[in-house]
Amino acid sequence: MLQAALRSGAAHRRAVFEVFARHLPGGRRYGVVAGTGRVLDELENFRFGDNELTFLREHNIVNEETLAFLADYRFSGNIYGYREGDLYFPASPIMVVEGTFAEAVLLETLTLSILNHDCAIASAASRMTNAAGKRPIIEMGSRRTHEHSAVAAARAAYIAGFASTSNLMAGKMYGVPTAGTAAHAFTLLHDSEQAAFEAQIASLGPETTLLVDTYDVAEAVRTAVEVAGNKLGAVRIDSGDLAAAAQEVRELLDSLGAFDTRIIVTSDLDEYAIAALAAAPVDGYGVGTSLVTGSGVPTAALVYKLVARETATGKLEAVAKRSVGKPSRGGRKNAYRLLNESGHAETELITTGGLVPEGGVPLLHELVRDGEIVGREPLSAARERHAAAVATLPQEALQLGRGYAAIPTEFA
Amino acid sequence: MLQAALRSGAAHRRAVFEVFARHLPGGRRYGVVAGTGRVLDELENFRFGDNELTFLREHNIVNEETLAFLADYRFSGNIYGYREGDLYFPASPIMVVEGTFAEAVLLETLTLSILNHDCAIASAASRMTNAAGKRPIIEMGSRRTHEHSAVAAARAAYIAGFASTSNLMAGKMYGVPTAGTAAHAFTLLHDSEQAAFEAQIASLGPETTLLVDTYDVAEAVRTAVEVAGNKLGAVRIDSGDLAAAAQEVRELLDSLGAFDTRIIVTSDLDEYAIAALAAAPVDGYGVGTSLVTGSGVPTAALVYKLVARETATGKLEAVAKRSVGKPSRGGRKNAYRLLNESGHAETELITTGGLVPEGGVPLLHELVRDGEIVGREPLSAARERHAAAVATLPQEALQLGRGYAAIPTEFA
Repeated sequence: MLQAALRSGAAHRRAVFEVFARHLPGGRRYGVVAGTGRVLDELENFRFGDNELTFLREHNIVNEETLAFLADYRFSGNIYGYREGDLYFPASPIMVVEGTFAEAVLLETLTLSILNHDCAIASAASRMTNAAGKRPIIEMGSRRTHEHSAVAAARAAYIAGFASTSNLMAGKMYGVPTAGTAAHAFTLLHDSEQAAFEAQIASLGPETTLLVDTYDVAEAVRTAVEVAGNKLGAVRIDSGDLAAAAQEVRELLDSLGAFDTRIIVTSDLDEYAIAALAAAPVDGYGVGTSLVTGSGVPTAALVYKLVARETATGKLEAVAKRSVGKPSRGGRKNAYRLLNESGHAETELITTGGLVPEGGVPLLHELVRDGEIVGREPLSAARERHAAAVATLPQEALQLGRGYAAIPTEFA
Repeated sequence: MLQAALRSGAAHRRAVFEVFARHLPGGRRYGVVAGTGRVLDELENFRFGDNELTFLREHNIVNEETLAFLADYRFSGNIYGYREGDLYFPASPIMVVEGTFAEAVLLETLTLSILNHDCAIASAASRMTNAAGKRPIIEMGSRRTHEHSAVAAARAAYIAGFASTSNLMAGKMYGVPTAGTAAHAFTLLHDSEQAAFEAQIASLGPETTLLVDTYDVAEAVRTAVEVAGNKLGAVRIDSGDLAAAAQEVRELLDSLGAFDTRIIVTSDLDEYAIAALAAAPVDGYGVGTSLVTGSGVPTAALVYKLVARETATGKLEAVAKRSVGKPSRGGRKNAYRLLNESGHAETELITTGGLVPEGGVPLLHELVRDGEIVGREPLSAARERHAAAVATLPQEALQLGRGYAAIPTEFA
């Protein structure tokens, strides 16, 4: 595509691409923006080196004119975007890329890969943290997804309110708080459950979390308190009927004087299972598979569409395809969230032509100016923004059932 | 876990971990092994450098004894595994890791991340290539998944019979054949559809594939043949009722004398949509989202479990947890596929204790010996093995509906 556009000359026309979702998959009520910071990180290093160019040349994938363009490639345009942690709805232009066609079209796969993955994870994570209320959730899904997706998933989950992750690389790269856990293998490795608990406490102190369901839960809890005393930090239950098990373990812990020992539950939890445990004496959750797979929605359905381009006469003109069932709206957009008097979100307003609604909260922010990255922010800002944004939603938007978008998208 | 085991001394006990799936998620009839080669690639570089150690030290994540162990870490044990492209069933031990507990437990997240992702993708891909029969499928899902998962997904899809990928990095890293496509943006960029087609053909020749659904399909097909002549390679339809559209386009192409111009269809295809197009005049498919998300099963439910470990007296002993609903079978396994006289698979036989069934095809192969990688093979071998393995399945195993595993797993 690039090669043919270079040949026709159209490659150098100014162009505007936008990233948006035609719908929220899975009957979700809102989407959560995540990955913007990763897009900026990757954009900074998005170059074609000798290695890449040699591959393209040797396999005759593109011609010399295109190779020369790629060798010099460096995005020099502008990017605007919704801030990480903010919400989005159908048609929200969560990223707007302005540049020449050639330089902007090359960013399609990179930006969509990052945003489709990270937004899907953050959107699922937000439902889980809503369901968990004040109880913390540990992200522990690394083993269930691609080794690099795992790191990005931990980052996205943190934005959406997860307390910590078992992925140490996410701690190293992004400063996400890390938390560990002992597996059944640790208990099985030792000659008895008691020996395993003693080993863990000798190394990590009584504040650690002991896994109590390798053999018999009640016996393990008694052993745990015997070994650790009533200062034992927590026990983890990873199987069975978690609500019933938590109730029994709570009573047993209390009867042994371990009133402050917390109960952590894990085992294929998703937002529905978390919600169902709301009345159980549970102090924290560990979530793996369902988080990293987007809890039924593993990709966010975001697309990257050309909405305007320069004409032969140098004017910027709105364009849109007319494909059956997949229409798009031409023209460079802007976006505002309209709130009511009590501060609740009422409308996602998408404008073209420079209209600025009174009192609307502007949603697009400058991220890249003339190729320079200007929109970085700490991950904590995204996390705080997400908590604040969710608080503006109408109460019914936090229901877990399938439904329509929490607020309507309107065009002006 | 490592730190506590180093402190108790149990870390140095010999141990055997196995990777297997308790069930095949989504009612799938068989799983496809993929990722083994990537595990070997990553294992070769799996070290803890200064950067990682500094992070762990500064955040007090592990103690000095553990840091010293990690600084010297290098896997020195043995790994056996099913070959890539082969099939697996519930309980198939697709990877067996032997070493000390400390060195083997550190590989859990790495091996599971790779295998859970790649097996999920390959298992979905295999259903799609079965449904497509002799028609080629292009993998084009990069934009719908994490930027690195995309590369692994293209590799896994190729093992399971996809013809090519739009992911150039998969071409570069793994030699997967690459194929490109023009997007609607290319047509919209030009002043007319005709100008876009002319630009593409001027650069890529008439053998290229023209996208014909940006505006009106019939008009686009006429323009395409006008511009390219009847040597036009292919047209692509990306929207609408694909069966009906393909029929109309075929008739139109034939009426224009473009008898050899192929028809490629895309647009959220999965194995069911591909099967439904079997009778339509379609020459090839492009599959994106459903491939990279595992078509409803984004992770393969593989677990990494300790099945044997050295006792205090130096004997290797089978171990298994008894957690409710998640029991595991202790003991180091072997695996054989039993075929009937006509060469069809009948049973997945899992053995312990060295039993070797007469005529059974051994499924576990040496991959790593004393830390040395000995099990590399070209990707083409995996692709050929997959085609051969699918041919041994009973016909009903290729049905797309939910069901039980295609052959029973037996233990001896």
